[in-house]
Amino acid sequence: MRALYVDEQLEYHPKAPDPAPPPGEALIRTRLAGICNTDLEIVRGYMGFKGVLGHEFVGEVVRADDAPELVGQRVVGEINAYCGECATCRRGDPTHCPHRSTLGIDRRDGTMADYFTLPIKLLYPAPSSVPDEWAVFTEPLAAACEITEQVAIRPTDRVIVLGDGKLGLLVAQVLGLTGCDLLAVGRHPEKLAVLERRGIRTQIADEAIPSGADVVVEATGSAGGFATARALVRPRGALVLKSTFHGDVSLDLSMVVVDEVTVVGSRCGPFPAALRLLEQRLVDVESLIHQAFSLEDGLAAFERASAPGVLKVLLTA
Amino acid sequence: MRALYVDEQLEYHPKAPDPAPPPGEALIRTRLAGICNTDLEIVRGYMGFKGVLGHEFVGEVVRADDAPELVGQRVVGEINAYCGECATCRRGDPTHCPHRSTLGIDRRDGTMADYFTLPIKLLYPAPSSVPDEWAVFTEPLAAACEITEQVAIRPTDRVIVLGDGKLGLLVAQVLGLTGCDLLAVGRHPEKLAVLERRGIRTQIADEAIPSGADVVVEATGSAGGFATARALVRPRGALVLKSTFHGDVSLDLSMVVVDEVTVVGSRCGPFPAALRLLEQRLVDVESLIHQAFSLEDGLAAFERASAPGVLKVLLTA
Repeated sequence: MRALYVDEQLEYHPKAPDPAPPPGEALIRTRLAGICNTDLEIVRGYMGFKGVLGHEFVGEVVRADDAPELVGQRVVGEINAYCGECATCRRGDPTHCPHRSTLGIDRRDGTMADYFTLPIKLLYPAPSSVPDEWAVFTEPLAAACEITEQVAIRPTDRVIVLGDGKLGLLVAQVLGLTGCDLLAVGRHPEKLAVLERRGIRTQIADEAIPSGADVVVEATGSAGGFATARALVRPRGALVLKSTFHGDVSLDLSMVVVDEVTVVGSRCGPFPAALRLLEQRLVDVESLIHQAFSLEDGLAAFERASAPGVLKVLLTA
Repeated sequence: MRALYVDEQLEYHPKAPDPAPPPGEALIRTRLAGICNTDLEIVRGYMGFKGVLGHEFVGEVVRADDAPELVGQRVVGEINAYCGECATCRRGDPTHCPHRSTLGIDRRDGTMADYFTLPIKLLYPAPSSVPDEWAVFTEPLAAACEITEQVAIRPTDRVIVLGDGKLGLLVAQVLGLTGCDLLAVGRHPEKLAVLERRGIRTQIADEAIPSGADVVVEATGSAGGFATARALVRPRGALVLKSTFHGDVSLDLSMVVVDEVTVVGSRCGPFPAALRLLEQRLVDVESLIHQAFSLEDGLAAFERASAPGVLKVLLTA
């Protein structure tokens, strides 16, 4: 099969071996795969991952010995393959299972190939009203929903989302659904326009941002994001860290103590909620698509996805 | 009156002017004042404070035109003189009032003097069963209670308190009252002995500390405290920052995101709760007293309080 493989650098393999599903797993044919910022970081060496890249997908089940009713179904899927038996899983935190492998990120081949396998328990049928081009956003949209899973956003809260990348635009749309007093801050007018069209207030990061927000979401993925967010949140407010910046940042934490700020790290989120939002057409994901490439053109797709100002690049298998 | 005054360095003033209470404030005669780590930091220049030092006290009201029933009463008092009218105060966060002055810390003369003034609304009568030597701990004990005000500690939680200074010993005792599985970690066996005597498990910081705690409280006041605490907390656990370390610390926040840790800054706490704990004799504060000095010997008292291994130093007025 065709596959985009990472081993210190990204390579296109025209004749990679087809995967065989272990017990409990399904063999899935990729219909669409999305390129995420995490993929760009993995190509740069983050995680030390070797294998087929990709964790965002919509696919079709071609084999599922333990759930034959799934064969032929269009599915999306969670990315953390948890054990289900350890204390962390039993506590209800399977996305944090210490024994987990993670699709296309950690010890598990990913979705940027003709086929991949995933535990059946991680799969969700894509509703028929949700086309492939929307369903492929289920994973990052679920990650946006994780914020409201962790932090109660009140309709009277003043909320700032920092960052107008793919994740920032999804986060702003999800938080806007609470009716809160929302401001999205970014550096690209053409990206912020996606939010403006939906009635969400935006502003350019260079302009003075009003401080004293109840909740600030840091989704810039930049070294300075934490300090900016910190300066904007009110005493006893919440600062949600949504993007990982890899590498040490020099911080003065004393104001977190003095102002009793709560800092919340936020990662993967609930798929069923994301699918419900897509079914209800409450989030515009289609405007986030920049371009689609075929798997053979995967290296060009990654080059495009790395360019400034580019939103979601998709791969068609 | 006699006063310990800080203006770039600590000075003893034998004939400082007596303060006069503005409307709404009481004139209080200091009975005991405690030296806190914040006082040591202020003497080193933190906050740029000039004035009479001291925020921990038990005193006697000598004048209170707006509440004459208080005259002659033994009182403790909160330290943040809030306006009561701004949005922060009306939201119920008066300790974060942006217009506040803070007793002996920020634009308000403190308690290390024969007399000081404080708004009547900040005063609480000391219960007769609580002697001066206990009542003077109300402020730091309230700060320990702030943790359970912010974070739900369950009796089934595994909790680690890092730091065996004055605040760490109070925090460990308060958290122990929840029945949680508690471990206090410090560097001074003689300090940890205060907790051991109360049946709280302790260990020396040099030994391997078991990780995976539900809640970790950082009360070491050291630059490395955050990283140590971070390594000990489980995914989706809570990391409470109780001590301020002033200055930049180099941190990798990406694991806070990956593990979805909640970091909670924690400062001043509820006085009534602290007084109830003292009345019920549920916290041993007396073992924390190292030595008492008279106001005249204030400079020697500060020297003693700065020495390694020394717990609470008191000043008698």
